[in-house]
Amino acid sequence: MPRLEFWYDFASTYSYLSAMRIEALAGDRGVSLEWKPFLLGPIFNAQGWATSPFNIYPKRGRYMVRDIERISQDRGISFKLAEPFPQNGLAAARLAMIGAGEGWAPAFTREVYLLQFRDGADISKTDTLVKALGAVRLDADRLLARIQEPAVKDALRAQTERAASLGLFGAPTFVTEDGEMFWGDDRLEQALDWAAGGGATAASSA
Amino acid sequence: MPRLEFWYDFASTYSYLSAMRIEALAGDRGVSLEWKPFLLGPIFNAQGWATSPFNIYPKRGRYMVRDIERISQDRGISFKLAEPFPQNGLAAARLAMIGAGEGWAPAFTREVYLLQFRDGADISKTDTLVKALGAVRLDADRLLARIQEPAVKDALRAQTERAASLGLFGAPTFVTEDGEMFWGDDRLEQALDWAAGGGATAASSA
Repeated sequence: MPRLEFWYDFASTYSYLSAMRIEALAGDRGVSLEWKPFLLGPIFNAQGWATSPFNIYPKRGRYMVRDIERISQDRGISFKLAEPFPQNGLAAARLAMIGAGEGWAPAFTREVYLLQFRDGADISKTDTLVKALGAVRLDADRLLARIQEPAVKDALRAQTERAASLGLFGAPTFVTEDGEMFWGDDRLEQALDWAAGGGATAASSA
Repeated sequence: MPRLEFWYDFASTYSYLSAMRIEALAGDRGVSLEWKPFLLGPIFNAQGWATSPFNIYPKRGRYMVRDIERISQDRGISFKLAEPFPQNGLAAARLAMIGAGEGWAPAFTREVYLLQFRDGADISKTDTLVKALGAVRLDADRLLARIQEPAVKDALRAQTERAASLGLFGAPTFVTEDGEMFWGDDRLEQALDWAAGGGATAASSA
């Protein structure tokens, strides 16, 4: 079964769009997914940005909100830009690293995104994470203790370094087994078609 | 007949993609187009960029080339990134301003893009512009003299100021009659659907 890596950051609005639809689209094409949470912050810092480019360039930020409002309406999902933006997704990303090993990363990730971008919750708060873990019937006490373990911290750090070394500069990013990289929710179908078809000839129009 | 403004910059690779397909897609939907050449340079300068963000952020620049290679291959058009990048499109944009008034802007614009991104020519050179004007059977001597006229210079300057005041931050950008703004070749269908349908209910999936 062909595989596709789905690299996402919990503060990323366009990653939310992809998280809500990627499993159905991948299923249609027989592509198996690897959910890869990582932190965009260090990657942005390395290119001289102290915050999201949507804050640094306000016109771009306002456009992003309108773009996602239109797309969300069209897809029948909710969207509001939770405050603050971008949120601190460190704890959520560490939890998702554990979840990637235990099989519950997709459900947990979607729940965190919904709490943030549907309900306006702050995902850096323990309350929000407890709610997300509870919604997917996980033991919040056990897992919130584990995100302080060096092995979990190191795993997320290593994954973020891997993202940087692959040349990722934004999220969501999709990486195929043959190393082809696709950036943005609007390239999701193209990435899946590439993964399913094994290369260029099957890539759909973008 | 509903209208859509197509704002483009001659150095913009994604504008090339849209220029090559926008007339067919607009025709399918009964949308009439206004071709709006402008200069991204002053807009980039105003936000602190001395050159294209594809040069300032090399990872983003390398990705852009690969993204457009894939899309071009899929659409059956040629693409190579002409040197230097970005090119100086001032003279071409002034010519296109004249062309917008005389009805030949679309054909001339496509020709300039093909000379640049198919053939690798430098569009700041008079030779290249003479070739583009000749290909669409225009009098190059007359038109190249006209781009030194204050009225033509002022018209392009005013158009670029209008772009800035609309909040444009990149190209291509599509603006509907009701003021909805769509950025990027990957939003072209959505912009046309919006224009044709008169609003949100007709917007297609992005």
